[in-house]
Amino acid sequence: MNQRIRAYGISIGEGTPGPLNKITDVPGVLVGHETIVNERNCTGVTVIVPSPHNIFRDKLTAASFVLNGFGKSQGLVQIDELGTLETPIALTNTLNVGLVHDALVEYTIRRCGQTIPVRSVNPVVCECNDGELNRICERAVTKEHVFRAFENACRDFDEGDTGAGKGMVCYGFKGGIGSASRLLTVDGVTYTIGVLVLANHGCTSDLQMNGRAIGKEIEGIEPSVTDSGSIIQILATDLPLSDRQLKRVLKRLGVGLIRTGSFLGHGSGDIMVGFSTANPLTPQDSSIRTIRILAENAIDPVFRLAAECAEEAILNALAAASSVTGPTGRSVHALTPWLKRLL
Amino acid sequence: MNQRIRAYGISIGEGTPGPLNKITDVPGVLVGHETIVNERNCTGVTVIVPSPHNIFRDKLTAASFVLNGFGKSQGLVQIDELGTLETPIALTNTLNVGLVHDALVEYTIRRCGQTIPVRSVNPVVCECNDGELNRICERAVTKEHVFRAFENACRDFDEGDTGAGKGMVCYGFKGGIGSASRLLTVDGVTYTIGVLVLANHGCTSDLQMNGRAIGKEIEGIEPSVTDSGSIIQILATDLPLSDRQLKRVLKRLGVGLIRTGSFLGHGSGDIMVGFSTANPLTPQDSSIRTIRILAENAIDPVFRLAAECAEEAILNALAAASSVTGPTGRSVHALTPWLKRLL
Amino acid sequence: MNQRIRAYGISIGEGTPGPLNKITDVPGVLVGHETIVNERNCTGVTVIVPSPHNIFRDKLTAASFVLNGFGKSQGLVQIDELGTLETPIALTNTLNVGLVHDALVEYTIRRCGQTIPVRSVNPVVCECNDGELNRICERAVTKEHVFRAFENACRDFDEGDTGAGKGMVCYGFKGGIGSASRLLTVDGVTYTIGVLVLANHGCTSDLQMNGRAIGKEIEGIEPSVTDSGSIIQILATDLPLSDRQLKRVLKRLGVGLIRTGSFLGHGSGDIMVGFSTANPLTPQDSSIRTIRILAENAIDPVFRLAAECAEEAILNALAAASSVTGPTGRSVHALTPWLKRLL
Amino acid sequence: MNQRIRAYGISIGEGTPGPLNKITDVPGVLVGHETIVNERNCTGVTVIVPSPHNIFRDKLTAASFVLNGFGKSQGLVQIDELGTLETPIALTNTLNVGLVHDALVEYTIRRCGQTIPVRSVNPVVCECNDGELNRICERAVTKEHVFRAFENACRDFDEGDTGAGKGMVCYGFKGGIGSASRLLTVDGVTYTIGVLVLANHGCTSDLQMNGRAIGKEIEGIEPSVTDSGSIIQILATDLPLSDRQLKRVLKRLGVGLIRTGSFLGHGSGDIMVGFSTANPLTPQDSSIRTIRILAENAIDPVFRLAAECAEEAILNALAAASSVTGPTGRSVHALTPWLKRLL
Repeated sequence: MNQRIRAYGISIGEGTPGPLNKITDVPGVLVGHETIVNERNCTGVTVIVPSPHNIFRDKLTAASFVLNGFGKSQGLVQIDELGTLETPIALTNTLNVGLVHDALVEYTIRRCGQTIPVRSVNPVVCECNDGELNRICERAVTKEHVFRAFENACRDFDEGDTGAGKGMVCYGFKGGIGSASRLLTVDGVTYTIGVLVLANHGCTSDLQMNGRAIGKEIEGIEPSVTDSGSIIQILATDLPLSDRQLKRVLKRLGVGLIRTGSFLGHGSGDIMVGFSTANPLTPQDSSIRTIRILAENAIDPVFRLAAECAEEAILNALAAASSVTGPTGRSVHALTPWLKRLL
Repeated sequence: MNQRIRAYGISIGEGTPGPLNKITDVPGVLVGHETIVNERNCTGVTVIVPSPHNIFRDKLTAASFVLNGFGKSQGLVQIDELGTLETPIALTNTLNVGLVHDALVEYTIRRCGQTIPVRSVNPVVCECNDGELNRICERAVTKEHVFRAFENACRDFDEGDTGAGKGMVCYGFKGGIGSASRLLTVDGVTYTIGVLVLANHGCTSDLQMNGRAIGKEIEGIEPSVTDSGSIIQILATDLPLSDRQLKRVLKRLGVGLIRTGSFLGHGSGDIMVGFSTANPLTPQDSSIRTIRILAENAIDPVFRLAAECAEEAILNALAAASSVTGPTGRSVHALTPWLKRLL
Repeated sequence: MNQRIRAYGISIGEGTPGPLNKITDVPGVLVGHETIVNERNCTGVTVIVPSPHNIFRDKLTAASFVLNGFGKSQGLVQIDELGTLETPIALTNTLNVGLVHDALVEYTIRRCGQTIPVRSVNPVVCECNDGELNRICERAVTKEHVFRAFENACRDFDEGDTGAGKGMVCYGFKGGIGSASRLLTVDGVTYTIGVLVLANHGCTSDLQMNGRAIGKEIEGIEPSVTDSGSIIQILATDLPLSDRQLKRVLKRLGVGLIRTGSFLGHGSGDIMVGFSTANPLTPQDSSIRTIRILAENAIDPVFRLAAECAEEAILNALAAASSVTGPTGRSVHALTPWLKRLL
Repeated sequence: MNQRIRAYGISIGEGTPGPLNKITDVPGVLVGHETIVNERNCTGVTVIVPSPHNIFRDKLTAASFVLNGFGKSQGLVQIDELGTLETPIALTNTLNVGLVHDALVEYTIRRCGQTIPVRSVNPVVCECNDGELNRICERAVTKEHVFRAFENACRDFDEGDTGAGKGMVCYGFKGGIGSASRLLTVDGVTYTIGVLVLANHGCTSDLQMNGRAIGKEIEGIEPSVTDSGSIIQILATDLPLSDRQLKRVLKRLGVGLIRTGSFLGHGSGDIMVGFSTANPLTPQDSSIRTIRILAENAIDPVFRLAAECAEEAILNALAAASSVTGPTGRSVHALTPWLKRLL
């Protein structure tokens, strides 16, 4: 794997990253990839496991935000209504959301086994379009791939052209999975904010790095001139946020996205999902639940750090990815040579 | 098949139905069922085909409205963003939306063949939970069932316990598919408004028929006492409505739903999708499109008739359904004996 | 004052009303009217005071829901963003919202005095159009009227053609202010749900009373044939609901509205605002707040009772109102003679 | 008046500005200010007049977008429902929205005179908080000021500390009114996109100019360290956009905002309103209206140029403003000396 953006001297914002500077710095969160590369396909699946517990039983507070809805993400309707997440989140290619949805249903049924009846489950599946590099119409991701991604789930996961990121293209370079995290101390307790992106958006000449219009300096590749990809941004935190507050924080992931140069192109589905591991909805006898919630006037640092995480996660996706030639015949270059030259 | 609600002397509203009094009175709209009944399953799929043309190429103006988002419907995010529908609409059971989604992707790829490249497609799949009668965890609906539903598409389709409606329960009685239509003359031209419902909601004692609290008169069945189902309502029209206007009209389907007695229970996902066959987005060279749109101050009759259609469609679902005993061992009675006795 | 709808033998639902069967059964809530009747005007203002405390300092959890946005209600944007209410709610005629807004600003500044600086305040003002009876263009409601409404605030307030309800017309009869309440026991504690409506909507032939299509039996008045009014519905409760849950409950006020016969006509702004007096946001040192919240699966009784309250509140507005002849020359009849004759 | 940002060698984007590089390049649009400066107040009002016609009669297609709803803007509910604008747009200070609302009602009544009855009107009033420089609690803006702003309406209006911008603070410097425009040729016809901002947001160290983190280089002023202001962005165009398309374009004004350094702070209400002068809803006999609409796949250039306009408009607000000392005793510096020094 390649280095991350900080290795090139680019440091985003002033917040302190967690130990791994990844979404998995949020306690209990794991990420797993399964990558599919063969003579016909170049795609994959990535799962974000929000907690070590059975999340179908111990649902988590969650929210979504749709900045550009030109996308096929699933599960957002129920998140908006109930403010809860009840499955892990899976990322994959655009035409595979159906099969991955089915896999998350089966995962949940298996996980619940004989003890918890499953009649209704709301899988959350988000997607970007890897049709440049991948024969996307073949819908190569199967249930077994999803189950293997769960088996691969770990804290120190790979970034770049891996898992769902295998076939993604970002600002005309090889994109995919990226992540970052920040620590925040509130009333003497340290919490973590983490973001994972599946980055598949942007026109080459728009690319910005920490304010530098690096995209305009790029030479030597066939640039991406339309923004017909998408970006998915997943936020995790152990801060006690309500679903309404989470939605507010998710909007600030858009700040990070725009700082990397995006103008939110028509063809780019820009979709955010976030959850808090505080206040899990563990079944209880009482009809009244006691929870802890961040005071609204303490939310600005959360906004700032979420934006920083998003920006750095996107740059990490670019820095970490290697060049890929897909079975479609298309080659997409890694950004790393340019980073070394230009920075 | 059983009779419809008008055979029992119940006539909803003052509007004039189309020839079939079904959604297929809207020119070009077809409906197809595939029902799955065997020793393990009692479920199915229903497809609404909006036009005889390739809808992926000639997209239609569309909207969605979520009255209660406790549901897993797919495709609404993109409809809200772009105001267009690009696949037929499929209805099925809650845990089968993934596989049916995948089938709609394949259907679209086949339909487009070599002539239209398909890299991104937004299937619309809506669902209700038939887990009382059906072993829902088995996800019995496959791609082949969906394709057969398309083959079965016709104008004079069945209602009641058929297709996606096979395992549905409505106000404690056998529910499922119902439909109705109304004609509306605007500036001398007659248009059609049609509604199809997948009715799987309601507590027995809440059932209302044209203002009569018939649910309180019911004896002799085990009543449904929680509203843990769902209802999907699909609206079609050839009236030239914008996506914003369609969303307004969809809200009035909720009026029809509430007139049948629903209080929009927590567990019932109440979701509407609508489309207009006017102004199809046929590819053209120009970047400016000329369209016709209903004046806003002429919209009240559309609201009234849409509400009527919804109300009558739900009652038709009840009237048309036969009793079903599912492989789960649960039996659900048809309402017809009570209709004959009470009306 | 006239009798309420229960005096005519109409009892809505099965819930138990509070002692007054009004929104003021919610502890701490008061309602005040100021009615303006003179040779030029026939209008007024009504204020709902949510708590005895300074609500600008001790903000309350709140939500809004817009069923039909053809209206000029103010303050909803910030309620949606922050989930809080920081002023009393004022109701008035459509063209007076500006002046009443200004009065609420001044009320808040006065209330806060020297101790709490006021630089930003979000008044909530809702409106219906009393232009049939009132010379609405004159904007007769002034700051002083609003202040007097606050002085008049009490628990056992009047209904019908009073305060903001003075010039309102409902289903072609004299409408205006109506209210109802229900008790709900959760985990052994009794809570109250209260609704107040400003009812100015509906076509005469659509009027329903407890399922009876009474509007079709009406003779002897000039009927209202277009729905060009509006209805405002305010919900109060001491149940510990989140802003998201409050929004869900507000949607069920629409159930009550539709049960009285409305089809949500184009010209009728149907707008709901609700608040909970539980968990007041009293200033505190800590950045983390501990609150109590109703479990989501215990919410169905709240939905049912909120719908009942809304339905009964609208009928109370009709039952309590007396006939009014406005300075416009238009006379609107009280419904009471028909109630006595038909029920 | 000071120079605009281009005088300092900063040129935003690659689009071509209109003749004035202001929102008034859109044919028919005028802007008028009335500034209030005396020993007690330092505030004002700005009106955007969308067309030379009576907009109450010939309503325009419109949309709003709320990026951060911590604000008191009025009229958005009805814009969202009906997709139309029926008054000019007024900007003022936070606590004056009520009185300015009332002034727009009166303006509309006067404008319609005896020929068009006005019973319901939806004024659009947006606001930022000038409480640092202005004694905001006094609500100094009266009807007469609004009427004078209309009298002052012209094409080549002032920017900076004028009108509603008189008391505004942006990134710790004197802010206020700014504007920019871009030309776009579609199918051989040239259209104009214009933006006007009321800029009162941002922390000093966050300020960015065309990618340069100029805010971090600032020395010698008391910096703004919390984002407790707001920004209003108004978009006008003669492109034939639907209300849904306008909402999409408004989201891209957020791109421009973020490019100037904002992280969308909690305390900053970020609100956008836009309208198209194409397809005015002139009264007609027919119930079906023929309109022209931009094809969705031609919308990317509109997004790009709208973002550029927003970015440049904010920088123009900063460049054009002079230092102001308010009656509160607070002084806010113009950015110009730093621009001269740093650029």
